[in-house]
Amino acid sequence: MSVNFIPLLSDIQEAHARIRPYIHWTPVFSSISINEILGAEFYFKCENFQKVGAFKFRGATNAVLSLSPEELAKGVGTHSSGNHAAALALAARNAGVPAYIVMPRNAPEIKKLAVAGYGGIITYCEPTLEARESTMAMVQQKTGCTFIHPYNRFQIIAGQGTAALELLDSKPGLDIIMAPVGGGGLLSGTAIAAKSIDPDIIVWAGEPENAKDAYLSMQSGSIQPAFPANTIADGLLTSLGPLTFEVIRNNVDQILLCPEPFITQAMRLIWERMKIIIEPSSAVPLGALMANPDAGWKGKKIGIILSGGNCEIKLSN
Amino acid sequence: MSVNFIPLLSDIQEAHARIRPYIHWTPVFSSISINEILGAEFYFKCENFQKVGAFKFRGATNAVLSLSPEELAKGVGTHSSGNHAAALALAARNAGVPAYIVMPRNAPEIKKLAVAGYGGIITYCEPTLEARESTMAMVQQKTGCTFIHPYNRFQIIAGQGTAALELLDSKPGLDIIMAPVGGGGLLSGTAIAAKSIDPDIIVWAGEPENAKDAYLSMQSGSIQPAFPANTIADGLLTSLGPLTFEVIRNNVDQILLCPEPFITQAMRLIWERMKIIIEPSSAVPLGALMANPDAGWKGKKIGIILSGGNCEIKLSN
Repeated sequence: MSVNFIPLLSDIQEAHARIRPYIHWTPVFSSISINEILGAEFYFKCENFQKVGAFKFRGATNAVLSLSPEELAKGVGTHSSGNHAAALALAARNAGVPAYIVMPRNAPEIKKLAVAGYGGIITYCEPTLEARESTMAMVQQKTGCTFIHPYNRFQIIAGQGTAALELLDSKPGLDIIMAPVGGGGLLSGTAIAAKSIDPDIIVWAGEPENAKDAYLSMQSGSIQPAFPANTIADGLLTSLGPLTFEVIRNNVDQILLCPEPFITQAMRLIWERMKIIIEPSSAVPLGALMANPDAGWKGKKIGIILSGGNCEIKLSN
Repeated sequence: MSVNFIPLLSDIQEAHARIRPYIHWTPVFSSISINEILGAEFYFKCENFQKVGAFKFRGATNAVLSLSPEELAKGVGTHSSGNHAAALALAARNAGVPAYIVMPRNAPEIKKLAVAGYGGIITYCEPTLEARESTMAMVQQKTGCTFIHPYNRFQIIAGQGTAALELLDSKPGLDIIMAPVGGGGLLSGTAIAAKSIDPDIIVWAGEPENAKDAYLSMQSGSIQPAFPANTIADGLLTSLGPLTFEVIRNNVDQILLCPEPFITQAMRLIWERMKIIIEPSSAVPLGALMANPDAGWKGKKIGIILSGGNCEIKLSN
């Protein structure tokens, strides 16, 4: 990829101005007890409170609003079945245009309902990547919609970077900023925003040890494919894209791995101590710190982006 | 009880000034989707984010800080095993004095740990009210501590009223304000604050249908005892006290009953849509509205105090 395709801080700032009327400027939470237990000063950017329940709404809104009027009129499409699909559906509805979402037949009912609830036009397909891509191509051909990749796209990265922009505006002077890494859209935007605002800030990512393709990509110097991974952090299963790989390679200081038990421990800590619901993927950065106590973060001011809050809840007496 | 013993708005305001350095001014959350689903405009006062995870910390702090220096030096005591015990322990620790907590041996481990974690000095007793009271009397005799009733006490009611004070400061012009009712401390403080600030505001309570002693007390005109109740809202099992009964009788417009399934439904709605953790007792007011759709609240601006967020969480893959 050419450097031209990598967003700058100014692109993130423009994205923020563009999406501001549609998004929540989410709060930053702290917990004295978490700080005491872990021995650092944590600032949690609560994207679980973002519309659609995840940071994905930032990038999706920015991508939709950045289209030309001609493109926009024909609508947008994607074949993600997770938060990006719901986010794109709402972003399109806000812009008054259709969102065509290709989903595998066996997607969880709750995700189908979310996308449909935001007005997304769903086309079901077989649960293979091949079927998803060919079905998407068919829908594009029929409708002329613009395919919005969930992370490997300039305006998606710029949009996701606005969460870090807000965090650093609310809490300047952080020593470390962290985000989880799946496809790398959030991490890329976070890294660009943070390093541009404060070149001394340390940017770390948390990745499930059971899905460490981004970690291996950094080590090997080339994008490693995602592999069938057994992790509760189901939002972090995708591989990096060429664009996010480029950004992460140049701007992220370290990817810390998080074994499964630490994901659950971190999630429990956040649920119980902060009384907020986050999805497992959001617990990975904190869990990665807990799993790596000697990585040099003790006593530091650490900003963590809690990426989302969409998870299945079972209530019982 | 003489009217002298009932707090006025000025007492609640003084309580607020007194406890302000120790408490969180908790945020007020809204959810467009909950508003759309239920057809009213809701403002949720998030006492689940209060220190100790519940509004109880307001009253406990006010009660501790209102003692004379001589009383204070000897410490405070209570035989609640729930949020009040933890709240009193932390309030006492903040004031640098001991808190003597009498707990039944079979209290949940998590509650014992919470009280001990805040520095409470625990004396265990048999799990009967008689044993609790006699053990408490013994501890008082030995230590000279002041017994702080969890709700039937002037300074507790004044302290609990500060949550409504903040809510009405943040969101003036509410049509209806609601709190759950157990012993009636929160409801009493809420009613006094709300009716004093705005005589036209409607004050409602939500009570589990399976534990409707407060409802029956209002109907019969005399305090009805709590009965062994099968409800998930385990914070609302106590009967009213003479003081809270007096306040509620004169200031609360209606107690709406909430059948068990509506408690769970309301709790799920709040967990899933607002991404915050509340305990079952906190869901009772919203559940009571859902169970009584014709009570006249549709289309209104409704403030609801979410009383706390302490509940056992089981995480699974």
